[in-house]
Amino acid sequence: MRLATVRDGSRDGRLVVVSSDGRRMASAAAIASTLQSALDDWERTAPRLAALAADLDAGRIAGAEPLDESTPLGPPLPRAYEWIDGSAYLSHVVLVRRARGAEPPPTLRTDPLVYQGGSGVLLGPRDDIELPDVAWGCDFEAEVAVILGDVPRGTSAAAAERYIRLVMLVNDVTLRNLVPDELAKGFGFFQSKPASAFSPFAVTPDELGPAWRAGRLHLPLRTYLDDRLVGDIDAGAEMHFSFCDLIAHIARTRSFTAGTILGGGTVSTEDPARGVSCLAERRMREQLRDGRPTTPFLQPGNRVRIEMFDDAGRNVFGSIDQKVVAA
Amino acid sequence: MRLATVRDGSRDGRLVVVSSDGRRMASAAAIASTLQSALDDWERTAPRLAALAADLDAGRIAGAEPLDESTPLGPPLPRAYEWIDGSAYLSHVVLVRRARGAEPPPTLRTDPLVYQGGSGVLLGPRDDIELPDVAWGCDFEAEVAVILGDVPRGTSAAAAERYIRLVMLVNDVTLRNLVPDELAKGFGFFQSKPASAFSPFAVTPDELGPAWRAGRLHLPLRTYLDDRLVGDIDAGAEMHFSFCDLIAHIARTRSFTAGTILGGGTVSTEDPARGVSCLAERRMREQLRDGRPTTPFLQPGNRVRIEMFDDAGRNVFGSIDQKVVAA
Repeated sequence: MRLATVRDGSRDGRLVVVSSDGRRMASAAAIASTLQSALDDWERTAPRLAALAADLDAGRIAGAEPLDESTPLGPPLPRAYEWIDGSAYLSHVVLVRRARGAEPPPTLRTDPLVYQGGSGVLLGPRDDIELPDVAWGCDFEAEVAVILGDVPRGTSAAAAERYIRLVMLVNDVTLRNLVPDELAKGFGFFQSKPASAFSPFAVTPDELGPAWRAGRLHLPLRTYLDDRLVGDIDAGAEMHFSFCDLIAHIARTRSFTAGTILGGGTVSTEDPARGVSCLAERRMREQLRDGRPTTPFLQPGNRVRIEMFDDAGRNVFGSIDQKVVAA
Repeated sequence: MRLATVRDGSRDGRLVVVSSDGRRMASAAAIASTLQSALDDWERTAPRLAALAADLDAGRIAGAEPLDESTPLGPPLPRAYEWIDGSAYLSHVVLVRRARGAEPPPTLRTDPLVYQGGSGVLLGPRDDIELPDVAWGCDFEAEVAVILGDVPRGTSAAAAERYIRLVMLVNDVTLRNLVPDELAKGFGFFQSKPASAFSPFAVTPDELGPAWRAGRLHLPLRTYLDDRLVGDIDAGAEMHFSFCDLIAHIARTRSFTAGTILGGGTVSTEDPARGVSCLAERRMREQLRDGRPTTPFLQPGNRVRIEMFDDAGRNVFGSIDQKVVAA
């Protein structure tokens, strides 16, 4: 099933299930008023939400509502208890660190990189990226993320998959020119990571069919800058650490509550022909090839679109489609 | 007023107001069922909660309940949307970095250090500190923290105080021996910061009287290890960056939702006679004096108590009192 959150003036919005064709939705209020409340009691709510989705597809819901680009969809979780982002694609780590003049860590292939991000204010799929200062070097990062159930401390990778409730796309907005000073202080990315934006739909793994396997999503993630395709990269092929590996890593010393969002990091490939999921990688490739980067970071007026189609041609998660605006 | 959360089997517990003498409590269910829901609508709920507290103190609440050490108090916010911890006491930064063989950052006095911590699972004041491996080097960090309202991006320090809703104490548990490898990777403390524990009561700044001024809490924070006093340090005197400074810092590039918790960092002093609020500082002082640290990190069976008394002798926040247990 596919779930979405409609903005209704409340902090958490209202939960809906989305039809297979993505053109209708049905209120889930009788089951759970918000996605967080559904996740809080998933054993009970998930089967009922799935039944509602089946009824919606079968035309059995009298109160079904139309769903289109004018529907005010927020992020599936407008505020989440945690947002943790990994960096599971090694070619991204290598390229971006080279751009900062930094070496990849010696444990690159054995110890996942993850950071804790802000989760109290998350952006919807069509929210503007507000940019107070172009000199901050605003970049997009197109990613896949999962929403977790309650994860006990000490969960192993082999036992982790059962805690993956939903899958989404993310634009993990990054202020590249603030990163070096933040990381130099040793405490993480803080100021260089403003609010991230999420896809319209959060999707159960079973909805992804064989494209979801071994904790990876094997479909191409497409990223557009001003309607020009800049990346068309399989999200599974070069994901070195699976989501199950990342769950085991984050759960080594603590547990997690239902609704925790875990990102896989910027989807990346060693093949330049497939493009990029962030401008930092493109700029690094330009520098290696031409001696200097020529693509600027995001400017007011730029648009970023991120989406993923399955083999049947369905826009699985709906599109993230954001405009950069001066603020 | 002073607020607390009683565990009742639900994820967020139930909100109560606490009497001035700390020995009675009254359900706030008619106003807000949980602290988060009170914070979500603070303009409406705060005056009503204050009136309830006044009624409780005046003996006008028929259903008042006794409050003592057997009351199952959780942390005021059992799960929060963000937990951000500063490091506003420079003597702590200098000593702890020296212990790791690292230099303090050159911007020590002008640019606050903050990290984003996990907030989905928070510990109550009497919850055990579960320690799977003594070699991780478990330490306590006694701190003051505030709970914020909705903070807009770009908030200045001068405008920040209005967003401070409540004040608490924190034990920011740290796994010292995991810190160096985590920080070497450049992404922050992740695995080295398990769940933090919070004081029984969250207190409005007005309740602190003249001890709360200019975004600092000028009262001594007392920390005990196995009932031996290890630190008795004024939390205001050497707090280089105030909570208002820290709010301006975190709000430079993003906004925050009501219920965000912001810590001031390990309360510290340059005066060794006042002791320490964490073992890492004591161990560094031992090393400087004796050539090697002699105090071990926490072991199963150790107890940590953290509390703060006001000039009238009242235990303002109640006591954090935790036992370390093997897990």
